[in-house]
Amino acid sequence: MAGNSFGKLFKLTTFGESHGEAIGGIIDGCPAGLELDVEKVQQEMQRRKPGQSAIVTQRKEPDTVKFLSGLFEGKTTGTPIGFVIENANQKSNDYSHIKDVYRPSHADYTYDQKYGNRDYRGGGRSSARETACRVAAGAVAKQLLENIKITAYTSAVGSIQLQKKFEDLNLEEIEKNPVRCPDPETAANMETLIREIRSQGDTVGGVVECVIQGVPVGLGEPVFDKLHAALGAAMLSINAVKGFEYGSGFAGAALKGSEHNDLFNTDGSTKTNFSGGIQGGISNGMDIVFRVAFKPVATLMQKQETINSEGELVEMQGKGRHDPCVVPRAIPIVEAMAALVLADYYLLNRNSRL
Amino acid sequence: MAGNSFGKLFKLTTFGESHGEAIGGIIDGCPAGLELDVEKVQQEMQRRKPGQSAIVTQRKEPDTVKFLSGLFEGKTTGTPIGFVIENANQKSNDYSHIKDVYRPSHADYTYDQKYGNRDYRGGGRSSARETACRVAAGAVAKQLLENIKITAYTSAVGSIQLQKKFEDLNLEEIEKNPVRCPDPETAANMETLIREIRSQGDTVGGVVECVIQGVPVGLGEPVFDKLHAALGAAMLSINAVKGFEYGSGFAGAALKGSEHNDLFNTDGSTKTNFSGGIQGGISNGMDIVFRVAFKPVATLMQKQETINSEGELVEMQGKGRHDPCVVPRAIPIVEAMAALVLADYYLLNRNSRL
Amino acid sequence: MAGNSFGKLFKLTTFGESHGEAIGGIIDGCPAGLELDVEKVQQEMQRRKPGQSAIVTQRKEPDTVKFLSGLFEGKTTGTPIGFVIENANQKSNDYSHIKDVYRPSHADYTYDQKYGNRDYRGGGRSSARETACRVAAGAVAKQLLENIKITAYTSAVGSIQLQKKFEDLNLEEIEKNPVRCPDPETAANMETLIREIRSQGDTVGGVVECVIQGVPVGLGEPVFDKLHAALGAAMLSINAVKGFEYGSGFAGAALKGSEHNDLFNTDGSTKTNFSGGIQGGISNGMDIVFRVAFKPVATLMQKQETINSEGELVEMQGKGRHDPCVVPRAIPIVEAMAALVLADYYLLNRNSRL
Amino acid sequence: MAGNSFGKLFKLTTFGESHGEAIGGIIDGCPAGLELDVEKVQQEMQRRKPGQSAIVTQRKEPDTVKFLSGLFEGKTTGTPIGFVIENANQKSNDYSHIKDVYRPSHADYTYDQKYGNRDYRGGGRSSARETACRVAAGAVAKQLLENIKITAYTSAVGSIQLQKKFEDLNLEEIEKNPVRCPDPETAANMETLIREIRSQGDTVGGVVECVIQGVPVGLGEPVFDKLHAALGAAMLSINAVKGFEYGSGFAGAALKGSEHNDLFNTDGSTKTNFSGGIQGGISNGMDIVFRVAFKPVATLMQKQETINSEGELVEMQGKGRHDPCVVPRAIPIVEAMAALVLADYYLLNRNSRL
Repeated sequence: MAGNSFGKLFKLTTFGESHGEAIGGIIDGCPAGLELDVEKVQQEMQRRKPGQSAIVTQRKEPDTVKFLSGLFEGKTTGTPIGFVIENANQKSNDYSHIKDVYRPSHADYTYDQKYGNRDYRGGGRSSARETACRVAAGAVAKQLLENIKITAYTSAVGSIQLQKKFEDLNLEEIEKNPVRCPDPETAANMETLIREIRSQGDTVGGVVECVIQGVPVGLGEPVFDKLHAALGAAMLSINAVKGFEYGSGFAGAALKGSEHNDLFNTDGSTKTNFSGGIQGGISNGMDIVFRVAFKPVATLMQKQETINSEGELVEMQGKGRHDPCVVPRAIPIVEAMAALVLADYYLLNRNSRL
Repeated sequence: MAGNSFGKLFKLTTFGESHGEAIGGIIDGCPAGLELDVEKVQQEMQRRKPGQSAIVTQRKEPDTVKFLSGLFEGKTTGTPIGFVIENANQKSNDYSHIKDVYRPSHADYTYDQKYGNRDYRGGGRSSARETACRVAAGAVAKQLLENIKITAYTSAVGSIQLQKKFEDLNLEEIEKNPVRCPDPETAANMETLIREIRSQGDTVGGVVECVIQGVPVGLGEPVFDKLHAALGAAMLSINAVKGFEYGSGFAGAALKGSEHNDLFNTDGSTKTNFSGGIQGGISNGMDIVFRVAFKPVATLMQKQETINSEGELVEMQGKGRHDPCVVPRAIPIVEAMAALVLADYYLLNRNSRL
Repeated sequence: MAGNSFGKLFKLTTFGESHGEAIGGIIDGCPAGLELDVEKVQQEMQRRKPGQSAIVTQRKEPDTVKFLSGLFEGKTTGTPIGFVIENANQKSNDYSHIKDVYRPSHADYTYDQKYGNRDYRGGGRSSARETACRVAAGAVAKQLLENIKITAYTSAVGSIQLQKKFEDLNLEEIEKNPVRCPDPETAANMETLIREIRSQGDTVGGVVECVIQGVPVGLGEPVFDKLHAALGAAMLSINAVKGFEYGSGFAGAALKGSEHNDLFNTDGSTKTNFSGGIQGGISNGMDIVFRVAFKPVATLMQKQETINSEGELVEMQGKGRHDPCVVPRAIPIVEAMAALVLADYYLLNRNSRL
Repeated sequence: MAGNSFGKLFKLTTFGESHGEAIGGIIDGCPAGLELDVEKVQQEMQRRKPGQSAIVTQRKEPDTVKFLSGLFEGKTTGTPIGFVIENANQKSNDYSHIKDVYRPSHADYTYDQKYGNRDYRGGGRSSARETACRVAAGAVAKQLLENIKITAYTSAVGSIQLQKKFEDLNLEEIEKNPVRCPDPETAANMETLIREIRSQGDTVGGVVECVIQGVPVGLGEPVFDKLHAALGAAMLSINAVKGFEYGSGFAGAALKGSEHNDLFNTDGSTKTNFSGGIQGGISNGMDIVFRVAFKPVATLMQKQETINSEGELVEMQGKGRHDPCVVPRAIPIVEAMAALVLADYYLLNRNSRL
C-alpha cells in the first residue's frame, strides 16, 4: 500500500536506500519451470550501471545481483525470488554539504514534509539507485516473455531529435554508442551536446522511445487497467519522467478521425499503427510503440540559490558524480518496466476465458 | 484483478455495459461522517451526459444516480456506497449493422479476441458509458476533498490551441460555452471547427488541461506510486486518451537543468512550476498541472472499409449518435478521475507517520 | 481495503444495509464463456431466505437476484457481473425500540464506537442480510467449479451432535428436513430442541460440517495463503461464527504423529484423511472436510439488562422476527463462501506453472 | 498474489527456502518515526530459534536479523524495511534420503504436484523456517503497538490441558519453562510427556492460547475483514495449525443465548467475555482471547511406509533434528502473527472516520 510493490500477479516489491548496506527486492508470482539465465540478468545490470561510459556518472557500483531464493537447479520454483544488490560505493560524505539544504526540483523538501525525516545521504527512496532492482526484476520478466522483444532507445536529447522512423532504424546500432540512439549520426550529435552541457555544469533532458514486438492479441483489461494505462504508470514511476504517450500520442490529438483510424488488413493486422498496438486498452498484435519524456537532471554542478530546512536562503553547488543526461542509462529501465507490465498482463490474461 | 476497480483506500469498482438495464458501482473506503450533497453529484452527471449541447452526441440519457447504501441521515456511514444509473435509452437496433463487423480503431477486434465473445450492442465495457460511474464516484471524492479545487478545461481541439496561460484565464468562462474552453474567442473557434468536422461526418481530437489547487504537501509515494504516476494511469484509463504529461511535460525534455529547476521561496513554495506541483512523486503544495491528449473519435459518419469477423473486407458507415469531438464531455471525467486519485492518496498519506 | 471485497482473482464486492432499498454486489474476474444457469442461482437463494420453514425467522423476503451486467446470451462475458437484491420487507419500525440501546453481544456498541454513527434500523453492514449477496455470488462460483461438489450440513445444535461419519451419511436427506441434518433421527431431535428453545424466547448455537469432493490436487499457496487459511477466513467472516477447524482439527492436537499421519496409497491418495484434504496448505485431492462453530443468536425474546448510548442501564426485550438457531440457514452461506474460495484458488493456480 | 504477502497497510512479504543462502522479507507500510529497538527484535528471534532447550530440535541457527533499509538514526523512515536472516546451518545432506520420497502428511506430494518441482532439501517454502521472518516482522509490529500486550502460551500438549483460567495465571512463569506453559506444575507434566514421546521417536500436538490486552475499541471491519477472520487466517497460515477459535469458540456452539450473551457494564465493558473481545468483527476493548490447535509434527523418528515419486511403496525413517512437539516454539510465532494483524488493522482504522 505504501507503494513499494509493482504488478498484481507478477509482483515486484523493492526495498533499500542508496546509502544502506544493500538494496533488493522480491519477485512474487513468477511461475515455476522457467529456466533463468542469471548471466542475462547481469548483462541488463551492466546496461544501467554507473560508470559505463564517459557521458554518465562516474560513480562505481558493481551492481551484482545475488539471488537468494526461488531458483533450484537453474529453474524458477514458483516461490518468491528474493535478491539483493550491495551498495558498494556509498560515499556518504559526498552529501554532507546538502544535509540541511533542500535541493531545487529534487524530492528533498516534499520527502521531509511527508515523513518528518530525510535521509540526506542520497535521497532515500527517491534515489534513482532504486531502479537497479527494477532492472534486475525486469530481466527476469523478459525471460518469461520469450517471444516478445522489447527495444528502447534514445529518440531525443535536448532539442536534437531522432528523425528516422522505427522501420528505418538499425536496432543493432543502439548499444554501439554511449547515447543508445540507433542512428549513428544523430547519436554523435547527441553525445557532443551532452559533453557540452556537462562542461557547463548543466544538465539536459531527453525522450526515450520504446517498441515492443511480438505481443499476442488480448493483453490488457478494458476499463481501469488498460494496457497503456499500466505502461504509462510504469514509465511515470521512473525518476525524472514528465510525460508518456503511445501510438499517435499528443500529435494524434490534432488529427481527424478519417486520418487517424487504422484500417484493417484481412488478417486482423492494420495498415497503419496510430493505435500504437493497443485498441480499447487491449493489445491488437501490432507493435506497441510509446515515448517517455525525461526532464533534465536537477543536480547541477553550478551555484544555485535555494533554502535550508530553516527556510533561510542559502547558496549551494552540486558535488559528486551525477549524470548530465539521464536518458542513456534510462533505456534499460524503460525496457525493464515494460517487461514487468507485460509479464503481469500475460499472467492476468490467462484467466480471461474458461 | 480483472481491472474494474480503481484506488486502494478510496476504491471504486464499477460494472455495466451500455446496453444492459443499468450500470453502477461501489465506493468502498469513504470515511464515515461526510455530509454528502447528492444534488452536487447529480450536477456533475449533467456536465458529462449526452445531449447537453449542439456539439455533442444527441443520445438522451437522464443519467440519474440512485444511491442504494452507505448514506444515513445525509452522511456517509463508513460502509460501501452502492449506486446504479439506469440505461434509459438503449436503442440496441442502432448497432445491428455492426454486429459482425470490426470497426477500425475501436475495441471490437481486441475485445472479441480476448474474451471470445463480443457484446456488439455498444462496445460492452469498452463503451464510454462506463465513465458515468466514474463521474458519480468522483463527485463523492470531490466532496471529501473540500479544500482542494480541481478544474479541467479544453486546451486544444484539432490544431486550435488555447494560447493563454492558466494565470491569465477566467475559469468562470469554462461552463459558459459548450466546448468548455475558458477563453471565449478560442472557444468560439473550437466550436466552429467541431461543427465543420461534424458536417463532414468526421471527428477530431483535442487536449484537456487540468489544474488542481489547494493540495497539501505530502500526497504521493516516492517509488512506484508516485502521485503523477497515479494521475497518469487514471487519465490513460479514460477512453480515447493517447498521452499524459504534467508540469513541463514533453517540452521539458528539451530544456537544460538551469532553465528547468524551480527555485524556492523561503516558505517552501517555488518561483516557477516546471515541476507541476509534484517533486519526487510527492505533492509540494504548488498547483498540480497536467495535460491529457485525446484522439479523434473512431466512429465516423463516413464510409470506411473494414473487415468482418470472417476476415472479409466489407464497407461500413457509422450510424447513430456519436460525438464529433470527445473533449468537451471528457472535462468532468478528467476531473472525476483526478478527484479519485487525490482522495485515495489523501487517505494513504494519513499513515505516513506515527 | 475497507473490507467489503472477498477474493483476489474471482472477487466479490458487496454493498448494502438491511434497511436500504437494495443490497447487491459485483463479481469481478469470472472468466468469459461460462453458461450461467440463473435459475440455479435463485435456488440457492431459496435455501438461505427467511421464512422457508417453521424453525427460522418468519420475515418475508423474496430475495430475487437481478443480474445487471456481465451476461450476454446466457454466458458470462468476462466483464463484471453486477447484481442487486431488493429489500422488500424493511419494517424499520421493528427497530425503534433499540434506537438508543446497545444490544448485548451484537455489533451495536463496537460499530457506533468505530464509525461514530449507527444505522439502528437493523444492524447496518453487521446484519446477516448481507450474506444474501454471498449466496448469490457463491452460486455463480459453484457453476464455475463444475466438477467440484460442496456439501454442508448441520452437525450439531446445542449439545445434540450428529454421530455418524460422512461416509455413512445419505446426503440426499439434507434438504428433506428444516434443520438440514443428513440423519433423519438426529434432525428430528435437533428440530425439537430448536422449537423448545424458541418457546423460551431463547436461542441456541450449533456446528456446520462441510465436505468438498472432487477438488483437484494443487489448489492453495504454501505460505500465507494456505487453502485452509482462506477457508478459515471465509467461514470466520460469516456472522456468529466462533471457530473453524479442518481435518482432525482441535481433536488432532491430542494425537501422536504415529496416529495422525495419513499414509499414502500408491496413487497418491491416502488411507486416512486427518489432513482434511489439505497438506502444507495445498489440496491433495482427498475430500476437504471442515467444521464451523456458530454461537447462539444474540437477539433474545426475553428481557435483558443492557445500556443505552448514554451509558445508562436499561431493560430491553427483543422484538421482531429472529432465528432461534442460525445454523439451518447458514448451510448455504457456508457452501457459498467455500465456493468463492475455491473459484479464486482455482484461477490463481492456473499461474503456478509456465 | 502468489501468497507471500500478509497484511494490507502494514504489509510483510517474505522470501526464502530453508536451504538457500538466506531468507528474508520486506515490511512495507510501517509509519515513519517509530523508534525501533533492534535488540528487542532479536530477543523475539531467540524465543523461536531451534536449539534453545532440550525439548526442541537441536539444529543450530543463530537467526540474526540484519536490517538493510528503512531505518535511519534509530527510527523508521516510512520506507520499506528490508531484512535478511542467514541460513547458517543448511546441512543439505540430511535430506538426501527423502529426495524421491513423499513424506506422509507433509507438503511434499502436494508441492510437487502443484509446481512440477520440489526442493527436497527441506521443504522449500513449506518449511517452518519461513516463520523466522514472521517473528522478525511481528517484533517490529509489536513495537508499533506500544500499549497493546500480546501474550501466548501453551495450553495443551497431547491430552494434558492447562486447567486454570487466564485471570488465575502468572504470566511471568511462561518463559521460565521450556514448554512455555504459565502453570509450573502443568508445564512439568507437559515436558515429561514431550520427552517420553520423543524417546519413542514419535511426536505430539498441542494447543496455544493467546490473550491480547489493551486493544482499543474499533479495530476490525464489519463484513469480510472481521478482526477475528484476519486473526484466524493468520493463525491458520502457521505450519501445522488445524483449528482456530476465539472467545467461547466451539464450546459456545452448545450454549443458549441467555447463557452466552455478554451483559454490559455502564462503561461499555462487559461482565463476561464469551465474545472474546470482538463483537461483529470489531474489537470492543475487552481482552481478545483465542486458541490455536497444532497437529503432531509429521516427521517421525520411526519407520513409516510411504511412496516415492514413481508411486512405489517404500519404507522411510526420519533423520535429522526435528521438534517432537511444535507448540513451545510456536508461541512467539502466534504472537508475531497477532501483532501483524493488529498493526494492520490499527492503520486501517485510522480511516474509518473523516
